[in-house]
Amino acid sequence: MKLGSLKGGRDGRLVVVSHDLAWCADATHIAPTLQAALDDWERVAPQLELLATDLAHEAIPMMRFHERNAAAPLPRAYQWADGSAYVNHVELVRKARGAELPESFWTDPLMYQGASDEMLAPRDPIPLADESWGCDLEAEIVVVTGDVPRGVSREEALNCIRLVGLVNDVSLRNLIPAELAKGFGFVQSKPASALSPVLVTPDELGDRWKDGKLHGPLKVDLNGQPFGRADAGVDMTFDFGTLVAHLAKTRNIGAGSIIGSGTVSNRDADGGPGKPVARGGLGYSCLAEVRMIETILDGKPSTPFLKAGDTIRIWMEDEHGHAIFGTIEQAVEKA
Amino acid sequence: MKLGSLKGGRDGRLVVVSHDLAWCADATHIAPTLQAALDDWERVAPQLELLATDLAHEAIPMMRFHERNAAAPLPRAYQWADGSAYVNHVELVRKARGAELPESFWTDPLMYQGASDEMLAPRDPIPLADESWGCDLEAEIVVVTGDVPRGVSREEALNCIRLVGLVNDVSLRNLIPAELAKGFGFVQSKPASALSPVLVTPDELGDRWKDGKLHGPLKVDLNGQPFGRADAGVDMTFDFGTLVAHLAKTRNIGAGSIIGSGTVSNRDADGGPGKPVARGGLGYSCLAEVRMIETILDGKPSTPFLKAGDTIRIWMEDEHGHAIFGTIEQAVEKA
Repeated sequence: MKLGSLKGGRDGRLVVVSHDLAWCADATHIAPTLQAALDDWERVAPQLELLATDLAHEAIPMMRFHERNAAAPLPRAYQWADGSAYVNHVELVRKARGAELPESFWTDPLMYQGASDEMLAPRDPIPLADESWGCDLEAEIVVVTGDVPRGVSREEALNCIRLVGLVNDVSLRNLIPAELAKGFGFVQSKPASALSPVLVTPDELGDRWKDGKLHGPLKVDLNGQPFGRADAGVDMTFDFGTLVAHLAKTRNIGAGSIIGSGTVSNRDADGGPGKPVARGGLGYSCLAEVRMIETILDGKPSTPFLKAGDTIRIWMEDEHGHAIFGTIEQAVEKA
Repeated sequence: MKLGSLKGGRDGRLVVVSHDLAWCADATHIAPTLQAALDDWERVAPQLELLATDLAHEAIPMMRFHERNAAAPLPRAYQWADGSAYVNHVELVRKARGAELPESFWTDPLMYQGASDEMLAPRDPIPLADESWGCDLEAEIVVVTGDVPRGVSREEALNCIRLVGLVNDVSLRNLIPAELAKGFGFVQSKPASALSPVLVTPDELGDRWKDGKLHGPLKVDLNGQPFGRADAGVDMTFDFGTLVAHLAKTRNIGAGSIIGSGTVSNRDADGGPGKPVARGGLGYSCLAEVRMIETILDGKPSTPFLKAGDTIRIWMEDEHGHAIFGTIEQAVEKA
């Protein structure tokens, strides 16, 4: 099934959304919010599934689902921890600044604790007070967990995954080096991220959800032009089971935790860095990556960071060309 | 006023607690949880104040307040961001491992995004699966904010502080170096932290709350012996207004965010590293600090990290010797 939150209050109002995202049904009589549903998933999920079946059969009152009226499915969450599972991306970042990739990065997941007190709606602008901060998008896959006990195995962690979706993890690139140098992770350089209009249960994804990875091209457009078409199932060094287990090594993880894949990134078929979509490549899921490749090839980047008025779109299509999770569609706005 | 949460459900049940912490009154008819109260503070706080006055006058039904029945005032929160405001502590940590303290550390706050999906109750054990991880306490001051808009000044940030309390920020010291080297902050090396039994509004603290700092000795006992008596108002390089404004530089902060001071740490009167309480000093608020001083003086640490059965107590007393925030009292337990 597909779940979303219509705007309303701090936590939105839970709706079940039809497979094609055209319709939705109020679910607040079952659980007022998605967090409430996740808190009591064993009891609530079967009721939501019944509602989804009724919605598919048009057997209940239904409303048009407008993505512009959707809040983030979790407008605020108790946890947002983001991995860097596409090590190709990490290697490129390092190469561009002349740093070695430690060998351990291929076996020990890189992850940071992000801010979850505000998750932007899929159509919210990206507020930017200062363009010199170097604003970037990062198109990623996320999962939302139930309760995960301390010390779980990868396999147990996979069983704790309740929902799958997309995120735009906004990054302020020019604030990152100083924060990385302090070693304490990102505070100012990672403002609020936006979630996709709906989150989807793994069973609804069929063959696309396999081995703890979401498969298929993650589409990214920048100012209306194709920018990224990387396959989320390819070059993902650490699957979501491994990422969740990594986070749970020393502590319990609470229901409703959002765990990210890091920027999706594919190598070229020849093993080299990716080519732009316009030149037949799979493109990129963040500006930093194309800038890194430009730096490696030309000595300096030529693609600018985001500025006011720039627009980004992030989505993934099913076999009929429909957006599975809806579309994250944001414009940068002078704040 | 003083607010706490009795155990019950995922978010506890809100109570107003008497000044001496002996009594409490159910406040769930005003707001079911502390988070709900913080979400609607302008409307709810005056009602809670009236309840606190009635409780003080014994004019309403009241119950004994037992700290063992208290959950963390926020059993889960949307944010936990911890500063390192006592730069003395940071300088000692660095000195012990032979690293320079960058000059910028005196002007640019060090802060990390922590996990907030589970805040331990004040009497919860500290679960520890592996003693070789180097388990440590960190006694700190915290504030809880209302909504803080992006880009606030220090003064505006101070006005957004709703509550003050204590935290034991548990750290797994031997997992920290590898995570710091990755630059992405703490993930596995910071398991769940415990909050004090109650949080207190700044006005209730009188002269102790001044210039965005909490003043007075933060008492720490280890296995029943005095271990730390450092004054939280002394040597705090960055006050809470500065810390909150730092976090809010590029994004809004949601109501109910917990912001920490970092480990409280005082220099000796002669400017040297602190001496143990038993030798007339103010002691320490974490084991790492005494181990660093031992390393500087003797070439190696002699105080061990926490092991199963060890107990810690963290509290702060008013002028009558009563615990202002109640007492965090935890035993390490083999997990």
